[in-house]
Amino acid sequence: MPKVWTKASLAATIDHTALKAVCTEQQIQELCAEAKANGFASVCVNPVWVSKCAKELAGTKVLVCSVVGFPLGANTSEIKAQEAALAVKQGAQEIDMVINLGAAKSGDWKTVEDDIRAVVKACGKAPVKVIIEACYLTDQEKVKACEHATKAGAAFVKTSTGFGTGGATVDDVRIMKQAAGPQVKVKASGGIRSYHDAIKLLEAGADRLGASSGVVIVTELPD
Amino acid sequence: MPKVWTKASLAATIDHTALKAVCTEQQIQELCAEAKANGFASVCVNPVWVSKCAKELAGTKVLVCSVVGFPLGANTSEIKAQEAALAVKQGAQEIDMVINLGAAKSGDWKTVEDDIRAVVKACGKAPVKVIIEACYLTDQEKVKACEHATKAGAAFVKTSTGFGTGGATVDDVRIMKQAAGPQVKVKASGGIRSYHDAIKLLEAGADRLGASSGVVIVTELPD
Repeated sequence: MPKVWTKASLAATIDHTALKAVCTEQQIQELCAEAKANGFASVCVNPVWVSKCAKELAGTKVLVCSVVGFPLGANTSEIKAQEAALAVKQGAQEIDMVINLGAAKSGDWKTVEDDIRAVVKACGKAPVKVIIEACYLTDQEKVKACEHATKAGAAFVKTSTGFGTGGATVDDVRIMKQAAGPQVKVKASGGIRSYHDAIKLLEAGADRLGASSGVVIVTELPD
Repeated sequence: MPKVWTKASLAATIDHTALKAVCTEQQIQELCAEAKANGFASVCVNPVWVSKCAKELAGTKVLVCSVVGFPLGANTSEIKAQEAALAVKQGAQEIDMVINLGAAKSGDWKTVEDDIRAVVKACGKAPVKVIIEACYLTDQEKVKACEHATKAGAAFVKTSTGFGTGGATVDDVRIMKQAAGPQVKVKASGGIRSYHDAIKLLEAGADRLGASSGVVIVTELPD
């Protein structure tokens, strides 16, 4: 039987997201206000906005989530780890990192896993969501990426950056749910614009959603 | 009278570019081989490939160019500076950085300029090309961005990342050429796919071109 969602339980699955390069300070302020008003899980922002969001959301239940090696994943492990550590120091409580996609497409899974491990280590207790950017991977590569993320200590595997050629799909969520370890959650993100989009991904097994349309999604929840 | 281009002089204006997240080791190897064979100014690659390119191109005239804060520019100045310093240490001879676009769109030009200055300082003698991502800026903002890049010590101002909503245009090259200081060069990039594209940007005042289609461009040069 499908779960019955309330506005609160649905909102609690959503990372309220603003990752466009051109987001202004005013837009980040509005993002934080909307997250508080709706009870979203977190705000997900670029590194330059972490300090501001940590101040805006101090004393609330809304977490600050930031991104690392985003959106290409083609930064060195050393810099990814430093970026993650700085974000945590500035107040980020969750970190969404992009894997080394070039290494993945070259079949160099050791490099992929070591890169994730370096970020997990740098984050300490802050959970790391590992973005596999599924649109660029074969199904076999998606499985491999989730297995190596699990070994490297990921808290979540995440489908997409929202900057690739495709976003979250029901099929990818199912593949990732099965491939990742039982303790590893799945975050679906990219192109989730409606209540209908959200529910089908949650029913496929997603534990968290990344969306810039969170306000629309919870507003569309039927009475 | 328009300049008469030879294959060699045209190739020497081109940064041979491969910045897609999914570039494989094999593709980077081919990029380096093509750059040597054609006499391109540099290869322009993501940070994970700098060490490899430095080895491949040792003893040649082809430079290694890497990117910083790419492509969103929304990383902290501290991390951008560390990423630049590491790339230079690993063998990058030129650095293409993206400005803090959120600060630019918020009108916070002091933050934009300080961010560029931090990277210029971290690069030492390596020239820094400052990507203003013109597609997101008004003409007035393009002028401001070039003025602040000049003050902060940019060697070049550069039109685009190739990951935004638009690439290099003749109008933008003209605006940037005029707004930047006389010692600052202009790099046009994004969507330059043919000899015709290349020539019109060079005639508008571009000193360097960033393109993944360099081989096509020089091959199309009329006899």
